Amino acid sequence: MAAAVVWRRGAAWLRSCRANRELPGVPRARGCAGSREVVPTCERYAVRRLPFARLADGDVAFFERLMPGRVITGEEEVKPFNVDWLKSVRGCSQLVLKPQTTAEVSQILRYCHERNLAVNPQGGNTGLVGGSVPVFDEIILSTALMNQIISFDKVLADGSALDCLTSLRKDNTGYDLKQLFIGSEGTLGVITAVSILCPQRPKAVNVAFLGCQSFAKVLETFTTCRAMLGEILSAYEFMDEKCMELVETHLKLSSPVADSPFYVLIETSGSNSTHDEEKLHNFLEQAMASGLVTDGTVATDEKKIKVLWSLRERITEALTHEGYVYKYDISLPVGKLYDLVTDMRARLGQSAKNVVGYGHLGDGNLHLNITAESYSHSLLEAIEPFVYEWTARCSGSISAEHGLGFKKRHFIHYSKPHEAVLLMQQFKAMLDPKGILNPYKTLPSAPDRSTC
Amino acid sequence: MAAAVVWRRGAAWLRSCRANRELPGVPRARGCAGSREVVPTCERYAVRRLPFARLADGDVAFFERLMPGRVITGEEEVKPFNVDWLKSVRGCSQLVLKPQTTAEVSQILRYCHERNLAVNPQGGNTGLVGGSVPVFDEIILSTALMNQIISFDKVLADGSALDCLTSLRKDNTGYDLKQLFIGSEGTLGVITAVSILCPQRPKAVNVAFLGCQSFAKVLETFTTCRAMLGEILSAYEFMDEKCMELVETHLKLSSPVADSPFYVLIETSGSNSTHDEEKLHNFLEQAMASGLVTDGTVATDEKKIKVLWSLRERITEALTHEGYVYKYDISLPVGKLYDLVTDMRARLGQSAKNVVGYGHLGDGNLHLNITAESYSHSLLEAIEPFVYEWTARCSGSISAEHGLGFKKRHFIHYSKPHEAVLLMQQFKAMLDPKGILNPYKTLPSAPDRSTC
Repeated sequence: MAAAVVWRRGAAWLRSCRANRELPGVPRARGCAGSREVVPTCERYAVRRLPFARLADGDVAFFERLMPGRVITGEEEVKPFNVDWLKSVRGCSQLVLKPQTTAEVSQILRYCHERNLAVNPQGGNTGLVGGSVPVFDEIILSTALMNQIISFDKVLADGSALDCLTSLRKDNTGYDLKQLFIGSEGTLGVITAVSILCPQRPKAVNVAFLGCQSFAKVLETFTTCRAMLGEILSAYEFMDEKCMELVETHLKLSSPVADSPFYVLIETSGSNSTHDEEKLHNFLEQAMASGLVTDGTVATDEKKIKVLWSLRERITEALTHEGYVYKYDISLPVGKLYDLVTDMRARLGQSAKNVVGYGHLGDGNLHLNITAESYSHSLLEAIEPFVYEWTARCSGSISAEHGLGFKKRHFIHYSKPHEAVLLMQQFKAMLDPKGILNPYKTLPSAPDRSTC
Repeated sequence: MAAAVVWRRGAAWLRSCRANRELPGVPRARGCAGSREVVPTCERYAVRRLPFARLADGDVAFFERLMPGRVITGEEEVKPFNVDWLKSVRGCSQLVLKPQTTAEVSQILRYCHERNLAVNPQGGNTGLVGGSVPVFDEIILSTALMNQIISFDKVLADGSALDCLTSLRKDNTGYDLKQLFIGSEGTLGVITAVSILCPQRPKAVNVAFLGCQSFAKVLETFTTCRAMLGEILSAYEFMDEKCMELVETHLKLSSPVADSPFYVLIETSGSNSTHDEEKLHNFLEQAMASGLVTDGTVATDEKKIKVLWSLRERITEALTHEGYVYKYDISLPVGKLYDLVTDMRARLGQSAKNVVGYGHLGDGNLHLNITAESYSHSLLEAIEPFVYEWTARCSGSISAEHGLGFKKRHFIHYSKPHEAVLLMQQFKAMLDPKGILNPYKTLPSAPDRSTC
């Protein structure tokens, strides 16, 4: 098994384009923690190498015959593939492969399965939980060259129904296998092609950037704008004043809104600019009159919209300038969303440099970030498992978007019942019986079968 | 194994409410094919009973102790559970169980697993592919009494983010097991509770019912209204003139639009009635001026909206008055959607009473229905596999919404590759090793292991 997964053959694929895209505002080459060497994962964390085969000269020779010129072996050349862009984890792989076709991926996996060689599938290496780089010497299977647009369907472009089997809106034949692979973080198979529904480009986009005096007002503003903006509301993001300080300090951005404990970014997308502006105007009038919002600015032209979005989107980048970042990506009932930040701030006191909260309020998704000059095990122990216990008490999810990767796999029980995890382990064993695909990731270790 | 599946415990569930709802306009008790006795499935189709245990008195006694008063055994009482509402398939179960809790479902399945008794999970028995009734003597596990609203979350009600773990919008911890069970038609587990996101009730709803002179114009009207109605377009349905004839003849409904080869129903849902009416008005003006639409009517009040919707929604009911209905539910590229109806009509000629097409154009979903006075094997052979081959050539799906059930499981290969079907069979074997859950459904038979 451990097969290459292709949703469907011969149709409208946009290959790996998302996975290979860089994070907004975060060029991969940029050093986040200066030029300091990253501590190898196997030294920082208690993890033991599983008994996979070691790479031999014959293996490299095989891959060089299979894909000449797309096999990377030099230590310096392999280095950037071994470290995540947060510079928080580091593997010691000696080999990067860059297949271009599904057939090549299949051949690589078949060979590695036979030889019992572990494989680390890697897209854009933008992961935030240590899932995208090797832990030990896993072979890195990079999808960097699988970036061709196989076809682009103009029906798609105008948003109407799709013209390829692969891109059907409805298909109810048998079990939904595709969904099992999505989000499995390369532990069940390698996704070699994707089909994406591109929504129609909206004719009118507006962005409002507002200041609120409390988180309660952030919530009430959300309820009001849900009701008044309705179907044209396309984003409702919030950030606290600490976040604003960081983007101002490290990135020299400037806030268009005066000092507020909280900031909100509201985006509308619609088909009629007159209607949309009228709706937005009515909402803002109401929000100001009722004191929900104390200050604000609105943008309708593309350039100013981009400037406003960068205040929110570049927080992640600003955080990396602080030193080491402990990142948490939590789903919670919206009403309790910010309590976690307040509680964590009180708990950590002076031992953390900053504790900040921002995120996608409409999705109930909080990005809690804690910074320190450098990694400290005692600070980690003050944060975890406290953050997971807090989340589980509110029936939240310990990973809303980021996945579990290497860093969070042992905490899956805070969000999933024991029976579910067992079932996942059975699926893993069925699809990848030797466990060669992205080992040490996503699921907790099965009972120890390793030799050191 | 063969466990009761609960997405998550202790949270915002709306139990089985959808599954237990009757189809619009189709009361379950209503005889569709008059009072004629339905031919038993095992006589009409070449299918052999698998070697499950036979129901014994001790089994019934066990269930009566487990759920006193909710065990149905009388032949007349069990009868409606053995026949689908289309009156096209019939099983010969002797036992219906009506559990009320997840714990009861668990106990039933554990017992049946130990005793090797086959089970047919049944919701509202509204299935269209013979999946919801037994083929032989499977025990019917009815969810009819699992209809309590466990909790209703007012956050939900206003459409804002959800306040329970079970109803989180985002959760990316481990594999998405839930999705594997959805659409598995009771062959992997029994879903005992569901959590539903209720969208905000729109402040303004409008419906336009229009006549088009060709299918090409139906398509062009769709493109135009996508662009001009944008975010408020909530439905785009079409039906051909044959459908209109059937609802007029059998249900005495009357069309508000003069003779047209095709009819289109457009619904808008939005937050501002003035804006919505203006958008709809502009679109209609454009559609009439450019000759896309020849005649039409618009409804804004709830009663008239309901009348217009009934023309489209009651086609299924009207069809059942014709005799026997061969039902196909196909996903296709929209441009080719109606060609299948035309081709089928030409192919069948006088051997069919009617060949009609209608469906959800926005989803690329065609409901192709063929009627005859009564079931005929030779007519079936004229339709199948022709309809599936035609669909596969266009990379369509042979079941967009209905599932595969009993009638279509052997045609899965027209929509799914061999490797995918094998993987599904492995999942089935893992979760339900004795194959007791809804046997003879969804997946093609594994190599024959039955005794007659």
